[in-house]
Amino acid sequence: MGSTRRAKSAYFSMMLSLDGQGTLVDQLVRALRAEIRKSGEGARMPPTRTLAKDLGLSRNTVIAAYAELANEGLIASHFGGGSFVSGMEKAARPEPAESDDEALVPSSSEPRLSDFARRLRSLDASPILERPELQYDFRYGLPVVGDFPFAAWSRIVARRATIGSVSVLGYGDAAGYMPLRVEIAEYLRRARGIVCSADQVVIVSGSQQALDLAARILINAGDHVALEEPTYEGAREAFAAAGARVLPVPVDRDGLQVERLPARTPRCRALYVTPSHQFPTGAVLSAPRRAALLEWARAHGSYVIEDDYDGELRYDIRPIEAIKGADVDDRVIYVGTMSKVLFPSMRLGYLVSPRPLLDSFVTAKHVCDRLTPMLLQMSLADFMSQGHFSRHLLRAKRLCAQRRTALLQATGQFLGNRVTIEGANAGIHVMMWAEDRPASDVPQMIRAAAERGVGIYPISPYFLEAPERAGFLLGYASMEEKMIGEGIERLAKVICGA
Amino acid sequence: MGSTRRAKSAYFSMMLSLDGQGTLVDQLVRALRAEIRKSGEGARMPPTRTLAKDLGLSRNTVIAAYAELANEGLIASHFGGGSFVSGMEKAARPEPAESDDEALVPSSSEPRLSDFARRLRSLDASPILERPELQYDFRYGLPVVGDFPFAAWSRIVARRATIGSVSVLGYGDAAGYMPLRVEIAEYLRRARGIVCSADQVVIVSGSQQALDLAARILINAGDHVALEEPTYEGAREAFAAAGARVLPVPVDRDGLQVERLPARTPRCRALYVTPSHQFPTGAVLSAPRRAALLEWARAHGSYVIEDDYDGELRYDIRPIEAIKGADVDDRVIYVGTMSKVLFPSMRLGYLVSPRPLLDSFVTAKHVCDRLTPMLLQMSLADFMSQGHFSRHLLRAKRLCAQRRTALLQATGQFLGNRVTIEGANAGIHVMMWAEDRPASDVPQMIRAAAERGVGIYPISPYFLEAPERAGFLLGYASMEEKMIGEGIERLAKVICGA
Repeated sequence: MGSTRRAKSAYFSMMLSLDGQGTLVDQLVRALRAEIRKSGEGARMPPTRTLAKDLGLSRNTVIAAYAELANEGLIASHFGGGSFVSGMEKAARPEPAESDDEALVPSSSEPRLSDFARRLRSLDASPILERPELQYDFRYGLPVVGDFPFAAWSRIVARRATIGSVSVLGYGDAAGYMPLRVEIAEYLRRARGIVCSADQVVIVSGSQQALDLAARILINAGDHVALEEPTYEGAREAFAAAGARVLPVPVDRDGLQVERLPARTPRCRALYVTPSHQFPTGAVLSAPRRAALLEWARAHGSYVIEDDYDGELRYDIRPIEAIKGADVDDRVIYVGTMSKVLFPSMRLGYLVSPRPLLDSFVTAKHVCDRLTPMLLQMSLADFMSQGHFSRHLLRAKRLCAQRRTALLQATGQFLGNRVTIEGANAGIHVMMWAEDRPASDVPQMIRAAAERGVGIYPISPYFLEAPERAGFLLGYASMEEKMIGEGIERLAKVICGA
Repeated sequence: MGSTRRAKSAYFSMMLSLDGQGTLVDQLVRALRAEIRKSGEGARMPPTRTLAKDLGLSRNTVIAAYAELANEGLIASHFGGGSFVSGMEKAARPEPAESDDEALVPSSSEPRLSDFARRLRSLDASPILERPELQYDFRYGLPVVGDFPFAAWSRIVARRATIGSVSVLGYGDAAGYMPLRVEIAEYLRRARGIVCSADQVVIVSGSQQALDLAARILINAGDHVALEEPTYEGAREAFAAAGARVLPVPVDRDGLQVERLPARTPRCRALYVTPSHQFPTGAVLSAPRRAALLEWARAHGSYVIEDDYDGELRYDIRPIEAIKGADVDDRVIYVGTMSKVLFPSMRLGYLVSPRPLLDSFVTAKHVCDRLTPMLLQMSLADFMSQGHFSRHLLRAKRLCAQRRTALLQATGQFLGNRVTIEGANAGIHVMMWAEDRPASDVPQMIRAAAERGVGIYPISPYFLEAPERAGFLLGYASMEEKMIGEGIERLAKVICGA
């Protein structure tokens, strides 16, 4: 069956001709659109992986093109994988007056899904799974384990779990538990230069929920949203699921190239940006660009979603304030998370809303899931007010700095000029580019590393247009220094021994 | 300012004439549509409360009409209250090619929101706030406090909070923690007659999230959804926010009048139903109607969302299985919650997904908020596997039965035939109808009760068409028997002393 599918896709690929106009995604969309019109309804589309290989494109280019076609209602995905040609944009919304017969058509096994669900299917959104068999796992997003004050946290949670008053156990304010919002507002003022009142702080279930809520309240299907290229996949998922047309804006060593934001059209409803430590490149947005970005947002009436996912963790460089701190026009939605400084499975994040959006965020949160669990909100408020949070942050910063140094030293020692490291002055990850190795070597390098017990992860999922060089995202927060050194030494055999 | 607004609304109301065709909501929508066309963009709509009063309609009728108009893009809501006439359906989606000038229009203080956010604004969705000043609060949704095994729960949570492995703290499966899913599948088989495998169980952050996810993956704006009339406001919010056209289907003593579901058109994408204990009437869906409902879903290719929010708590009557148990065509999305049997602020619910939707539910959960907090999932799994859950359920059932008896006895003693009680054979609430008192007396009765320290809540928010009699929803789960008796005695003075 694999070979049949392969043969069909090769046939399909032969039919496609890219016209060289605009981005590769645009070209591919046009070519596929033409081919789809010739195919009958229900014709199977080649798998993204196969088509990418056939055409010599990155898989993300193909995924982006499929997402656009799904958005247009031209294709949909089958349960269990695969996309097929669909006339659904018409079929999906029958006019009652015209569809007397359609109502009694027996249900097929293929459910009719919403546009949102069809976009989800083309997203290929799936978490990077744990690989416990790997002794040296440089997976990004793992927490800084080892120095977290579990005893204090457990004590706090246990105490909060014994309090049985109705007000603690019932439904609370959708915006969150006020003492926690006060703690966070105070922390943001002190640590991130943001002056806001506690009532502008909305507690959410992790920063992903903040992104989803922002997408839902700002974006209609078909609206434009600007994203950094490359960018965080969770943001791309949230906006693509909302039906946004994504405009990638390139990033260089000074962060987002603000001058390349659309000057007039299309009008972007929102811009998602990681100014303190660009994800994944690690660039810090320069001061002139910060000012230009805020001016662009004001002039366009766009909202800026500032994801400050690891703004607290900085090393050689002086702390840089959040752009929300300079947001005199109230156009920045600031998003923060406890996932990096505490741990992801806590599922606690927050946003600071511009005044005109506050009501929408709170109502959206209420309709989506009422409120974030009170046990966690109250426990975190205690954890912060008792000083555990700021002490842990200091310890985590010190520990991450040591681990970062270990990574940089080992890389210098074992890999020398065979790799380039970027984005090391903040956060808990770096980008590693293997010099002289093309992107097509990446799958084989990942396999070879895994055989030596080392987990490395490709950079390509964060790009719409995959880079030509072999690149990797390496997280180091959860690994001890000794393990980092050994892991890099083993990795060197993979990279240099080719 | 209040009087100016009042005068304008009275003028506006005078202009409206209802044509007597169809439901009151339909008539009002048509009348308002005509009036809006005459008004200029930006004209202020009268507040729903005022217009309802002027026209002698229930406020819910007006809210439903405004929601429909917002859905059509004819009106929008101002931050801080009030709706205004809008030409936004066109303005909201500028075609880039035609909007060269629009892009540089400076931002106004009124943000441009998504259709979703505009629908939220017209929803009037706000939680019923706690009223701690009331000594006898019959608010629905308060937990069964007093017998929850806080010591065991706290011990379990504390132990889980000290476990610091990467796999516990990192990102997990969006569908939920597998041991918890296994516990829930086993519980559903034993207690609710549902045979499903653990991988069909998706853990969500409260049943509201299950409803929101179902609305998002099944509904496009403009699709029809059938809801019981009256129904749970959280379901109406989730579907209305998704842009569904809501078809109310009446309920009688045997539950949803299945024969009144649309026979041919419009085609309903989903039906939301509470068969075990209709919310809020308390009716139990009869066996013939259950079969007819499943047959209707099969014939129409519709999904049934079965909200079994309190199916565990039954008194004089034998337990009735969930309709999911008879769902041979795999068309029922079963939704359960820990809010009633444990407590709401835990924010833990689950759904059992039909196979063809499972993938969509899990991806939607992943994109919305990644996963439900692991500390709570793991703790609940322990709480269940150690037997605390089933023991608590038995105790809670006994306690609620006693409280229910206290409520019925006190009502008989102090109110006699001045009220009718409905829906008392299950759950943790009843409906109380005050005989000989019109619905217009409700606000005054609520005030008079509050003056005597008694919290009572109107039935009208659950109806699209408000009933003519004065009706109240009384929750009793969190009140001790003595307090229930005293509360009803005080309430009798309000109801009989008029």
